[in-house]
Formats: sequence, structure tokens, C-alpha cells
Amino acid sequence: MDNPVLAEVLRGGLAESRHHGAVAVVDADGAVALKLGDIDSPVFPRSAVKALQALPLVESGAADGFTAEELAVACASHSGEPGHVATVQAMLARGRLDASALRCGAHAPLNRDAAVALFRAGMQPSALHNNCSGKHAGFLCLACELRSDPYGYCEPDHPAQRAVRAAIESISGAQLSDERRAIDGCSVPTWAIPLEKLALAFARFGSGHGLPPRRAMAAARLRAACAAHPWHVAGTGRFCTEVMQLLGHRVFVKTGAEGVYCAALPAAGLGVAIKCDDGATRAAEVAMATVIARFVEMSAAEAAAFERFVRPILRNWNGIKVGAVQPAGPLLAEP
Amino acid sequence: MDNPVLAEVLRGGLAESRHHGAVAVVDADGAVALKLGDIDSPVFPRSAVKALQALPLVESGAADGFTAEELAVACASHSGEPGHVATVQAMLARGRLDASALRCGAHAPLNRDAAVALFRAGMQPSALHNNCSGKHAGFLCLACELRSDPYGYCEPDHPAQRAVRAAIESISGAQLSDERRAIDGCSVPTWAIPLEKLALAFARFGSGHGLPPRRAMAAARLRAACAAHPWHVAGTGRFCTEVMQLLGHRVFVKTGAEGVYCAALPAAGLGVAIKCDDGATRAAEVAMATVIARFVEMSAAEAAAFERFVRPILRNWNGIKVGAVQPAGPLLAEP
Repeated sequence: MDNPVLAEVLRGGLAESRHHGAVAVVDADGAVALKLGDIDSPVFPRSAVKALQALPLVESGAADGFTAEELAVACASHSGEPGHVATVQAMLARGRLDASALRCGAHAPLNRDAAVALFRAGMQPSALHNNCSGKHAGFLCLACELRSDPYGYCEPDHPAQRAVRAAIESISGAQLSDERRAIDGCSVPTWAIPLEKLALAFARFGSGHGLPPRRAMAAARLRAACAAHPWHVAGTGRFCTEVMQLLGHRVFVKTGAEGVYCAALPAAGLGVAIKCDDGATRAAEVAMATVIARFVEMSAAEAAAFERFVRPILRNWNGIKVGAVQPAGPLLAEP
Repeated sequence: MDNPVLAEVLRGGLAESRHHGAVAVVDADGAVALKLGDIDSPVFPRSAVKALQALPLVESGAADGFTAEELAVACASHSGEPGHVATVQAMLARGRLDASALRCGAHAPLNRDAAVALFRAGMQPSALHNNCSGKHAGFLCLACELRSDPYGYCEPDHPAQRAVRAAIESISGAQLSDERRAIDGCSVPTWAIPLEKLALAFARFGSGHGLPPRRAMAAARLRAACAAHPWHVAGTGRFCTEVMQLLGHRVFVKTGAEGVYCAALPAAGLGVAIKCDDGATRAAEVAMATVIARFVEMSAAEAAAFERFVRPILRNWNGIKVGAVQPAGPLLAEP
């Protein structure tokens, strides 16, 4: 049974492409508020769980002196803009480390202007520009706090990754299996997990409901940091940043590779997990925006401003409007 | 009825993402050799038909003095490398034109090294770097040959686009409708056309069978130019270029945006048209490679070298193998 179409891409009024996927919206007690497609099969959550991966960093005390910006960048898939790089460097300095300790690999900044400026200056991208460098700096600080050798922090049985795995298992209620473990783009392990359990984890992350006090406090601190500094969670012009800038504490939202998106909607007491079958971010964003618009209260002005996330317009190299992405199928059904 | 899965993306041995789509393989008489999914509904062919769009350029005599490299770049979605840019400039100079006449819009070279070198030199991308600039230079030369105002060559009613539309209608046997016309990324019109008719067009393009002599000669000249200069059709490291470098005259293959791919397999007398439903190039490439491997005779050494197109390996930022893309579903069935 195929998952339903979640979004379609229009060109000149015709559907040119379409994207299938699954959506889970769950409350902190595990009650399902919305289920589209298969939410039981495990999917790799990729970077969508960076905020959960940051829980041991905070709970361990390793982040006790961290600024809110540093906490936000620890949860980030950032665009490699100068402010992101400086924040990651500050985190590393706390552990008397520098970029040479990072094991995420180097890639050019996702932000085009930042990439052009780097090349114009005759520089090469480093691991600091990798969108995962904040998470990796967090892993390194956690490894230092745990008095383990920081060098191997990407290995699945390193104490830092064992702590991350235990935190995700506990908050999601899912048992993670090494049979369903793969290597992420930044070389840390990623364990597959059902969307329903992912959504439950984010419902708990957003509300603290059902969490031990120390974990609930860590989640609240990370959420507050991201709500206060959404630019540090992604970057200029990015979906996660702009949605959180618009809606503040009402939404924590985070992208992952291959069409995964997670969100916590604290006011509604809900968690959201989405996987676009084909890995397309453009469709996962439209699906996430549609879910947020359904479950988060907005003023008329906010709803009007939010429409560009639900039905983004596509323009060509000359700026001519050539089409749009829009929600489709069961996502359009009335609640 | 959904189209079948054509390709899946593995991570750590698990299918992380999957891509649906449709495939048509047709001979020059219209007999269907392979049909997967819906090949009757019109799809926007985008850049996959650049070689057909170049037919009026050659038939009109406008390209009589063109080099083979210039003909190849007229059929190209090139990577904006210096050799591509120089070839396009030479074409424009034939019409006493320069880059200011191009209406395709500017974007950075698709080739990363070329883009970095451009920015390092303090330059901005121009319309010459647009992957479609060769096609546009061809349209401009055609417009001059037709003694029409070159300025409006992107408009659907301009004599150049009318000639292009007539050529595609004639070679495909499909009637193109302005109801199903949209604007392409480079601002020229794109008319939706069923995959079966697209495949028929490329079977005829590859064999000349069923074409008037002048058109058959134009097709043969374009094919020979692309087979001799596959680098000019795409660029360094690109699928179209490397497949044609490996298989020479046996395959003409061309990518289009949103997961469209077309090919002519002259020795087999077949044309191929593929559309990945979600627009993913990675899946359309794997599907095209699988079709080519089935219908084109190769030596054992060629088949071994070709395997990397059928099952490309995915590596992360540290060069670690994290997964692969592979054909799936009915594409795997024995012929």
C-alpha cells in the first residue's frame, strides 16, 4: 500500500511532479491526532532529531555555561554563515578544542552568499561550515564531560553516542536496533524509528509531559534557545528559521535529510513527524506547513504571512512565476 | 493508479527513499518495446528535448557553418565550464551577437570548480553560464536566419518557437496544445507531451526512419556532433556526458529538469522517455541506465564500467560509503 500524495508541484497550472509520504501527529500520551500513510515502519530521522541528540549535552551539565545561541546551533542544520561558524568556534573553545576535532567532514556553506564570500576570499570550506558542525561541537563537549576520548565520538559505542541513543529510546518509547542503523551524512550513526514514535518524542520534547524532571528542564532550555535564536537553527531564508521567527514559542521545527521533518507544537500539546517517500525537502516543507496551519492558532495576519510556506511560488532564473508547490490529497481534507 | 517504483535509495542496507515513475521504450514505427506506468498522460519534457528543439536550427541552414562542438552545445544542458562558455560565445558571434542577447537568465555554473573559479576571480555568473545558453544561442541564430526580430525569441508566437513546436509535433506525432504549455526554467515555452510520443520522437531522431530527408540529415548531424563531443552536451562528471563517452554512437541521452530523461538507441532502433513522478534526477538516471543496459549491446568490460550508472554508490562528506541508488520494481523484471 503506497503512502498518499502529500504535495504536488505545478507548472503553468498543470501538476508536473508529485510527492508521496506519511505524516504522524501525536500528543504526549501517544494519542494520534492525525495519521496519513504508514507511520509504523522505521525511517532514518537524520538531522530532524538534532534537538533530541542535544538532550544529553544539556542533561550532563556539559552545556551549563552555554549561551542560548550555542544551544540553538547545537540543534542546527545551519547554513554556514559567519555567525554560525563563530558560534561553533566558541563552543569548541569551551572544551579547549578547535575545528580539527570535528569529524563531520567539510562542505561549502549552504548559504550561497556565505559560500561566494568564502571563495572570493580565497578560502576553502572547512568542517566548521558543515551544516552539522554545531551538533558535532556539542558531541565533543559531551564527550569531554563524560571524560571519554573525544576522538571517537562518531562511533556508535562511544559513550556520547550511547547517551544519545538512550535519550532517543527513552523519549520516543521506541527500541532502536543496530540492525536498522546507518551512517549519516556527517558520519554519526542514525537509527531508524517509526514516525509515530518520533512524533511522540517531539510531543514530549515540546511539553515536558511524561519526562523525568532533568530531561524536561533540558528540553525546555533547548526549546527556549531555538525560539529565541531561530536563525542559529538554520539560517537566512530557511524554512525552519522563518517559521520559528513568525510563530515564536508556538512551534519548534527541524528539517532532516531525505524529506524528514519533525516539529513540536507546545501550545497544542502535539508532536509532528513527516517523511516524504522520495526524500524531497520541498514536499516535506509544504506538508509540515499545512500541518502547522491546521494545529497552531494564528492571527489573520500571521495566517496570511504563513501562506507562502503552505503554497510557495516557484520562479525561474528571470524571476518569472512558473508554478507553485501545494498540499494535495488527504492533507487537504478538513480536520 | 500510481506509477510503479523505479528506483530506491539505500542507506546502510535499508531502503530510505523510493521513486515512482513511468518509462516508455518505442521503435520508430511506434511499436512499444517496454511500457512501465502511465505513458499516455502529457508531461513537460523540459530540457530533455533540446536536440529536437535544435532541428529547425540545422534544417533552416542557420547552422551550416557550425562546428560539431557548437551543435553539441546547442543540444546541451551544460555545466558552465570555460569550454562551454567559449563555444556559446562563438555561436553568438556568428550572428554578430553577444551575451546581452540571451534571455535565459543567469545562474552560477553547475560545475562546482567552474563556479568557484568564477567567484575567486571576482566575477558574477552571466547568462553565458546558464546551462541553457547554447540552446538559446541556437534560437538566436535561427531567429536571425528567419529574418525575425531576435529580441522576442522566447515568446511562443515568435517564428523560432513556432518552428520548434512544429518540428516536435511532426517528429513525435503528438499535437501540442497551448492549454498544456508552461514556461521553462530558461523562459522558453515547454509543451506537455505523452512519454510514448516522446520515445517515438527519439526513435525517429536516432534512426531517421520516417523522417523527411532534410530532417533525417539534420538529426544525423546533431547525433554525430553529440557522439563526438559528449562533454559539450553536459560536462565534467555528468551522466549524459559519461554515458555517451562510454557508449559512443550507440546512445544519445539527454536529461531534463523534474526527472525527465530521453534517449535514442540507434543500433536497437529505439527511443526512450522516462519521467520520475517526483522530479528526482537520481532516480531517472538509474532508470535510464537500467533501460540502456537492457537494450544496448555492450562488451563485458563496458557492462562492468556501466554498472556505476545502474547502481551508483552514495558517499558522505568524509567519503564513507553510506548507501546506493538502485533500480527497483518492474525495472528489475527480466525482459
